Amino acid sequence: MNLILVTRIISFVMLIMGGFMLVPACIAFIYNEVNALHGFTISIVIIFLISGMTLFIFRKQRGRALSTKDGFLFVALSWACASLFGCLPFVISGSIPSFTNAFFETISGFSTTGASILTNIEGLPKSMLFWRSLTHWLGGMGIVVLTVAILPLLGIGGLQLIKAEAPGPTLDKISPRITETAKILWLIYVGFTVAQTVLLMFGGMNLFDALTHTFGTLATGGFSTRNASVAAYDSAYLDGVITVFMVLAGINFTLHYRLLSGNFKSLLRDTELKTYIAIFAISSAVIAVSLYGEVYTTIGQCIRYATFQSATILTTTGFATADFEQWPFIAQSVLFILMFVGGCSGSTGGGIKVIRIITLFKQGFNEMKYLIHPRGIFTLRLSGNIIKKDIAYAISGFFFLYVLMLLVVTFVVAASGQDILTSVTTALATVGNIGPGFGKIGPTENYAFHSDCVKWVLSFAMLVGRLELYTVLVIFTPTFWKK
Amino acid sequence: MNLILVTRIISFVMLIMGGFMLVPACIAFIYNEVNALHGFTISIVIIFLISGMTLFIFRKQRGRALSTKDGFLFVALSWACASLFGCLPFVISGSIPSFTNAFFETISGFSTTGASILTNIEGLPKSMLFWRSLTHWLGGMGIVVLTVAILPLLGIGGLQLIKAEAPGPTLDKISPRITETAKILWLIYVGFTVAQTVLLMFGGMNLFDALTHTFGTLATGGFSTRNASVAAYDSAYLDGVITVFMVLAGINFTLHYRLLSGNFKSLLRDTELKTYIAIFAISSAVIAVSLYGEVYTTIGQCIRYATFQSATILTTTGFATADFEQWPFIAQSVLFILMFVGGCSGSTGGGIKVIRIITLFKQGFNEMKYLIHPRGIFTLRLSGNIIKKDIAYAISGFFFLYVLMLLVVTFVVAASGQDILTSVTTALATVGNIGPGFGKIGPTENYAFHSDCVKWVLSFAMLVGRLELYTVLVIFTPTFWKK
Repeated sequence: MNLILVTRIISFVMLIMGGFMLVPACIAFIYNEVNALHGFTISIVIIFLISGMTLFIFRKQRGRALSTKDGFLFVALSWACASLFGCLPFVISGSIPSFTNAFFETISGFSTTGASILTNIEGLPKSMLFWRSLTHWLGGMGIVVLTVAILPLLGIGGLQLIKAEAPGPTLDKISPRITETAKILWLIYVGFTVAQTVLLMFGGMNLFDALTHTFGTLATGGFSTRNASVAAYDSAYLDGVITVFMVLAGINFTLHYRLLSGNFKSLLRDTELKTYIAIFAISSAVIAVSLYGEVYTTIGQCIRYATFQSATILTTTGFATADFEQWPFIAQSVLFILMFVGGCSGSTGGGIKVIRIITLFKQGFNEMKYLIHPRGIFTLRLSGNIIKKDIAYAISGFFFLYVLMLLVVTFVVAASGQDILTSVTTALATVGNIGPGFGKIGPTENYAFHSDCVKWVLSFAMLVGRLELYTVLVIFTPTFWKK
Repeated sequence: MNLILVTRIISFVMLIMGGFMLVPACIAFIYNEVNALHGFTISIVIIFLISGMTLFIFRKQRGRALSTKDGFLFVALSWACASLFGCLPFVISGSIPSFTNAFFETISGFSTTGASILTNIEGLPKSMLFWRSLTHWLGGMGIVVLTVAILPLLGIGGLQLIKAEAPGPTLDKISPRITETAKILWLIYVGFTVAQTVLLMFGGMNLFDALTHTFGTLATGGFSTRNASVAAYDSAYLDGVITVFMVLAGINFTLHYRLLSGNFKSLLRDTELKTYIAIFAISSAVIAVSLYGEVYTTIGQCIRYATFQSATILTTTGFATADFEQWPFIAQSVLFILMFVGGCSGSTGGGIKVIRIITLFKQGFNEMKYLIHPRGIFTLRLSGNIIKKDIAYAISGFFFLYVLMLLVVTFVVAASGQDILTSVTTALATVGNIGPGFGKIGPTENYAFHSDCVKWVLSFAMLVGRLELYTVLVIFTPTFWKK
């Protein structure tokens, strides 16, 4: 392992994050938020000092390449360190005095979960709310680069399937290629940000609200600046814009790139995209029908709330425009099932991911063919390509570990004295990076009531879920640390 | 396919079942239960007539062998037909007038689930209660023969792992071998039945209660003849006996055979057995500790109720001695997690099965090793034997289909207007053949409130879960019906 190089790169990432912190610092200055400005200034100084010193101390290790192990360490530690340093402004300014709460809120931001411990969001200074939403945006961008360019190389849980844009199997050539890919993705991400912000402002939002909600949407995060989330605006237009961009954010970003480069054909051939859209459409339709006459009186309202809620759960965003715990149970069960799906691979969405669900489906049915024709050869195909057994195997392993992780988190939450439904959906909502669930963490509630110990476990769960399980878990195996 | 031969064998199985029905008929005669006697007599005549006529019509097809496809058809249809004909006494006698309810109760019996639609169990004639419990005993015996001798040959979801006692890969030699294996298993099963019945009678139960509860225990079924289930007896001794036999019934019956033949070593080497015992011990311990001071005041009571409830859920029996919905949530979450486990392969227990959980665990961790050493070769080992990739692959497919099945059933139950917790645990309790769950199907409740439509879906779920998913599902694939 090349720990020095890993430390250097992480320090570099921290420097970038510190740079981004200058934006909310400026907002604090403009709005004359004294405590917040104080908090940001000290935080930035700390981050720059520590990162700068680390870079200086380890300045001599430059040319050597990263190994696979270094890759895992880098990814997991980047998110952990970003949350550690990113929560400083909350603590120092006193906006979120408890370190546990501040860390939870920040890792919920960077992991694009959107689970909040705030009971009065609107009580926070504007600059703090902006930073909170910005952690989503940065985390979302990070995850896209990670899943499209880095994880496929590390062979994580079947993500080799989206290797399309990535180079050969060695990591030596990784950095120039990553830079190139990252640039394109960055441009698309910024483009979407500008587009959604403008569209939201058309609907009557001010720049601040439009930007923060755009951050929450594109990262499929779900932090809002309002206590009532998106419901506070009560605008069909705004709901519609956010629904569309949530769905877009849940699509593999390399597909957006292909669309921009005029490659429509590959979009139509993409099984994951078609399945994702189908899941969204069917879920919305079932929910809309169940709401009609029961909760809403017009078809328009049913479609508006059904599409929004389907999108918010499927893409693992977590914005709320309605308290779905008051909805018919059939609608609730659809949302519950969507919690197991998540967005497409290479998107900002969390969860198991549509591509894995498809592969598992096909594998399950292939097994039946083998039962009938034990000596037959049945290949798994996705978007016309054959999926190697090893990849399908890795995906199966992922699925089991995912369910296992859910049960472990369920146990921990229940052990702290929460009921089964709250415990199960807390697990689903954190490991799947969704945010809201059922029971005491419903769409109108928050995570404040959880004990400190549970909050640390949930922070870990959000990190593990966000980084496709293996990236983090592998570090805790003895094999990882053997020479 | 050799449909005629399949029909012949099923008719033969029905004849045997009709023969067993003579026992409750005698009980009806002894206790002078007129309606019940009427019901049994007509049912037996119908069964003998139809089976006899079928055997006569198709008397010419004897010598030919069964194909794999025939095997699937035979297994799935046996259970379905047994439930169809087995529910006749309930309907004809008027004990359970609704055909849907009677079919549900019977398939719940044969599948050893133990989910009941009866709101007043004690209101049924003794002979009917005996038949109800006997369906458990017959279903349990059937499942042991099936999983030990037949399914491994069909290659169902990794059950090849318990092929130990079974012959080569072709089905031609199946019948002599099955007869031999079945005889040994039958002896063990009868031996256990006698032993438990005697032990229960020592504790003060009369022969009727002792026999019916033994049937429910050894089949890991869970039907009781009392409204309050085993809690009605309120005896620490009886609870203890039943706990021990539930745990024994959840163990692979080939291990019991090895134990009887003095082969202790292979027991100590058996990973599934050791894991099963460890799961039981740890669950009981966690629950006992959580109950101490909260629900019960003495350590003895805590151990008594904790071990019973752990055993009843882990082995998928479903007897009740306490309303665990009133217990601390940590205890509830342990029982909830146990619902995903189930008994050992080759036992009468349902669920995913311990052997599959172990394999999935090992595979998940192997995947991590592959991440670190992509060119390494990491074998899966179980009890010292290497597990072939194909088998691990089949188990992964099984696991996904199992979770999928759970979500589908959850959706159907929720669509009928039930809350999420009730819907989720109804799915777990039926697909896993457990019986009680949480919410409206808690240990003190029953399945009567479900709509007829839901009851049919649950009946199907119990059948699919009992027959290891693939056996039934494969019949609904187009491949199955292609020549």
